[in-house]
Amino acid sequence: MTQHLGRFLDDLDRDIRASADWGKVADYIPELGGIDPAQFGIAVALADGQLLTAGQAGQPFSIQSVSKVFALACVLGRIGEQLWLRVGREPSGDRFDSILLLEQEKGRPRNPFINAGALVVTDELLTGRSPKQALSEVIGFLRTAAGDDDIHIDKAVAESEAAHGHRNAALAHYLRSFGNLRNPPDHVTGTYFHQCAIEMSCIQLARAGRVIAGLDCAPNLLSRVKQRRINALMMTCGQYDGSGNFAFRVGLPAKSGVGGGLLVIAPGRASIAIWSPGLDGWGNSQAGTLAAEKLAEFTGWSVFG
Amino acid sequence: MTQHLGRFLDDLDRDIRASADWGKVADYIPELGGIDPAQFGIAVALADGQLLTAGQAGQPFSIQSVSKVFALACVLGRIGEQLWLRVGREPSGDRFDSILLLEQEKGRPRNPFINAGALVVTDELLTGRSPKQALSEVIGFLRTAAGDDDIHIDKAVAESEAAHGHRNAALAHYLRSFGNLRNPPDHVTGTYFHQCAIEMSCIQLARAGRVIAGLDCAPNLLSRVKQRRINALMMTCGQYDGSGNFAFRVGLPAKSGVGGGLLVIAPGRASIAIWSPGLDGWGNSQAGTLAAEKLAEFTGWSVFG
Amino acid sequence: MTQHLGRFLDDLDRDIRASADWGKVADYIPELGGIDPAQFGIAVALADGQLLTAGQAGQPFSIQSVSKVFALACVLGRIGEQLWLRVGREPSGDRFDSILLLEQEKGRPRNPFINAGALVVTDELLTGRSPKQALSEVIGFLRTAAGDDDIHIDKAVAESEAAHGHRNAALAHYLRSFGNLRNPPDHVTGTYFHQCAIEMSCIQLARAGRVIAGLDCAPNLLSRVKQRRINALMMTCGQYDGSGNFAFRVGLPAKSGVGGGLLVIAPGRASIAIWSPGLDGWGNSQAGTLAAEKLAEFTGWSVFG
Amino acid sequence: MTQHLGRFLDDLDRDIRASADWGKVADYIPELGGIDPAQFGIAVALADGQLLTAGQAGQPFSIQSVSKVFALACVLGRIGEQLWLRVGREPSGDRFDSILLLEQEKGRPRNPFINAGALVVTDELLTGRSPKQALSEVIGFLRTAAGDDDIHIDKAVAESEAAHGHRNAALAHYLRSFGNLRNPPDHVTGTYFHQCAIEMSCIQLARAGRVIAGLDCAPNLLSRVKQRRINALMMTCGQYDGSGNFAFRVGLPAKSGVGGGLLVIAPGRASIAIWSPGLDGWGNSQAGTLAAEKLAEFTGWSVFG
Repeated sequence: MTQHLGRFLDDLDRDIRASADWGKVADYIPELGGIDPAQFGIAVALADGQLLTAGQAGQPFSIQSVSKVFALACVLGRIGEQLWLRVGREPSGDRFDSILLLEQEKGRPRNPFINAGALVVTDELLTGRSPKQALSEVIGFLRTAAGDDDIHIDKAVAESEAAHGHRNAALAHYLRSFGNLRNPPDHVTGTYFHQCAIEMSCIQLARAGRVIAGLDCAPNLLSRVKQRRINALMMTCGQYDGSGNFAFRVGLPAKSGVGGGLLVIAPGRASIAIWSPGLDGWGNSQAGTLAAEKLAEFTGWSVFG
Repeated sequence: MTQHLGRFLDDLDRDIRASADWGKVADYIPELGGIDPAQFGIAVALADGQLLTAGQAGQPFSIQSVSKVFALACVLGRIGEQLWLRVGREPSGDRFDSILLLEQEKGRPRNPFINAGALVVTDELLTGRSPKQALSEVIGFLRTAAGDDDIHIDKAVAESEAAHGHRNAALAHYLRSFGNLRNPPDHVTGTYFHQCAIEMSCIQLARAGRVIAGLDCAPNLLSRVKQRRINALMMTCGQYDGSGNFAFRVGLPAKSGVGGGLLVIAPGRASIAIWSPGLDGWGNSQAGTLAAEKLAEFTGWSVFG
Repeated sequence: MTQHLGRFLDDLDRDIRASADWGKVADYIPELGGIDPAQFGIAVALADGQLLTAGQAGQPFSIQSVSKVFALACVLGRIGEQLWLRVGREPSGDRFDSILLLEQEKGRPRNPFINAGALVVTDELLTGRSPKQALSEVIGFLRTAAGDDDIHIDKAVAESEAAHGHRNAALAHYLRSFGNLRNPPDHVTGTYFHQCAIEMSCIQLARAGRVIAGLDCAPNLLSRVKQRRINALMMTCGQYDGSGNFAFRVGLPAKSGVGGGLLVIAPGRASIAIWSPGLDGWGNSQAGTLAAEKLAEFTGWSVFG
Repeated sequence: MTQHLGRFLDDLDRDIRASADWGKVADYIPELGGIDPAQFGIAVALADGQLLTAGQAGQPFSIQSVSKVFALACVLGRIGEQLWLRVGREPSGDRFDSILLLEQEKGRPRNPFINAGALVVTDELLTGRSPKQALSEVIGFLRTAAGDDDIHIDKAVAESEAAHGHRNAALAHYLRSFGNLRNPPDHVTGTYFHQCAIEMSCIQLARAGRVIAGLDCAPNLLSRVKQRRINALMMTCGQYDGSGNFAFRVGLPAKSGVGGGLLVIAPGRASIAIWSPGLDGWGNSQAGTLAAEKLAEFTGWSVFG
């Protein structure tokens, strides 16, 4: 199997590169807008500890919203079920940065993976901690999970996010106006922008994802129940308003980021990190989604049988 | 395992009956409104052909929206991918009978399990067929899948739905106004009301669901790919605006009906039918959801590891 | 003044015809879609009984939604304030046939001039009357108000509306599902389609509008209070989601129809009927709105000083 | 007439005080929340320069959103029609602080009287000016219009608004994210909060409103066309989502504030300022609206005949 999978990944890398349709890179900050969309990398961490890679698997990229999975893991580890008093667990049926639903639901974000919900998670992270400590906690979790201390924040990206982050600032003030933010809005957005600016390679991300996949080889950072629940949220809400489509095509829980990163989980079997910076209309990696679909097809890892 | 599971189901039945909180039965038609909420049945069809039951597993009930799964299976078998030009595959983020989203999405329902989407599926069923023939196709599918010819439509329920079905009539006319209904609205709603009025017991439903679960013992009615996709849709959209919560709590694809029926799928492992007519705030069986959660916990069948 | 106004109307007719931008005719039914947009007529009924005209003032056209003003007048005369338990008095902030707001407001239309509200008014008209009697009442009101018995329904338009009226049928069923329609939906839509298909010329419409304007020369059909209130509704809701803009540009209460008709009221001073079948983006007569603006500028009839 | 009106105002004051239903004071800041709702004042400035008063007409109160009329007058005087590229002229069909519509309309507020639109007006005021200069312009306009230099900002209210103004901060950041705010969000909100904290009595406000009413006795600060247009906006959008109802009941352009102030305009005839701090469900003065209705009834000043 492993041999076949290795060959498949090489073929996949070649096929993806041969295909012309890369999508468009996120352009809301210059640091992301200047990236060449025609790039692709993949890393697959297996339950037995093996790591298979293809393409630019060692190339660091901005993980952006993929970080929301790990921030959520930290907060669930700390406060557990209480989080759900402040955030829902339902797909939003709308864009990742929608403020509309927040109004309809009186300041309780639909789920922790849309921006409004992620800001509440960050606000929880900041309880009793400085922004610096909160960020250390997330990065510490990632380093331990990946078994790799070389994971950092790209300061230029973080600063650029802050300079262009008026939509997120609006969400934070709006949450605060409903009493669903305890810390000052600019502390929360500042921390959030830095969390999103974490840089990782596919290799690092696939290794960190082993904790979410509950692989035997993973460090013990998350209870089985929490791991399952995070996967459930990734399945129903992980790709914004393209989540249903991703479940339909790929059949695996996943979380995307506007940097083109994609963490795909085959529970108990594998943690897969894919990167290709061109995005589709929902803001998810276009080539990355295609690669995930082909990998699921090849491996039969769909959770749906 | 089977022995333990049998004992667990008996305990579950006893525990559910001991618990006071049954929810409220659907009251939009007198035929459903008059049912006693304090009822419970469960049937589990396993891959090896065994069938375990507890409570009122033999009691027939109105399957209502659970029928949407089988109507979809029929249509996918007939026209395949073309359906997705007319219906989306995303959670709706709203009530099952919302007309709002239909307006925002210009007449293309978000998914085949909200009422608007199910009407489009019925409209496809009616292509080149009379309402009677279309209904025969769905019932024929159910009978073959369940290996049981004693599955029928409750005419009184169908007629009562028609008399009270102005919301669905509105949806049908609205779809037609966008050109997304080919047959006359009253043909479509008439067929749909009859499809929803199919009566089955948990035993029959669990046996029919084996096809959706892709069990080895199931008749060969659905390709592997189609089976996976239907499960994906059940996971992200099967419980209306409570789908995310159900995935979080139970971790299995499922479809609910306002008659209190619940079809839960453990892909490759089991098809589970639960019935308890009291509903929660989302319109899903309250005791049924709790039973599904406890069963998933006991068996470890969550698809999320 | 009268002499100057007569000359102004002739100049206006010439200027409008010289201008190229007529807008697009409504095309949802063939009877309206086939009309040449490059047509214009205007008639001004003054308080002293004089009638000034220019252009195609004698050409009959389908009054469509302008009829809503007179249906409302009939219903207010009959049941008075009770109507407001079933319909609101606020601008909708949305399209004339929006179903969205109806959902948000639980079946109570925002005002009597959007289609949903007009259907409720028609439903009231049908209380204790057959569709034929209800239509006779509206036409009788118009004939008396205009002092002209030659006002009729265009049957071909009414039938075409019915054949293409799925959006309105959806609204009617939706209202019924909320219990805000007493008569069968198809009776209400049938009556409504016939009411909208009334044919009148600018001359007839301007004369009928004298009652709404409260002109000294008008037959006594409406109390002062009701007349004021209808004008208030025309000002805030008469041009669908272009009402604010019309108030800003023209400063007079008015009601438009998709047939290109426009009834503009200068309370106590004049009743003005304009017709030009090309519509703007809001569904209001494009040249008609421009003509109303220029007339208000010339006469200084703006109610805003 | 004047004598009768004076007596009517005294009676009105007595009647209002005798009525028990004052509504609820705004409680989002302690400075407003602590005010006794059972207060009432009225001042009527007539075209001939007379000023009639009753009740607490000399009592200063926080004019809040009534200030939007005068800020708009300043901006229209300075940049004219260009403003409408950034703000619409349509009723919102929603709450005064809705962010929902802003999302639907891609950052262009529906009108200058909802908070989002007022922030854009303030942003225009700040073009080429410091916050202090911008505020001086508005206060200067008010002082000249009222012929009274004793009009000031209540600093405590302004600071309290700033401390509690997260909803407005969200709107400002949101506008900025769409590129529809040129100045830093906190400059704009800071200026806006001070503008809203202007303190005036009914006497001062009625005198300032003479400019909006186009009274012969008013200082010449606004062209006839601008005066008309501001009145049109007040008529269709001045009472938030209660504007249609106000037009229906009162028939005059008006602007309300959450401090309980109400400026009502009888174009060419009178400028009326009413104050009663208890609010109705739309956020408009409850006793104030009733008083306006009775005054319009007594005087026959309705613009609708």
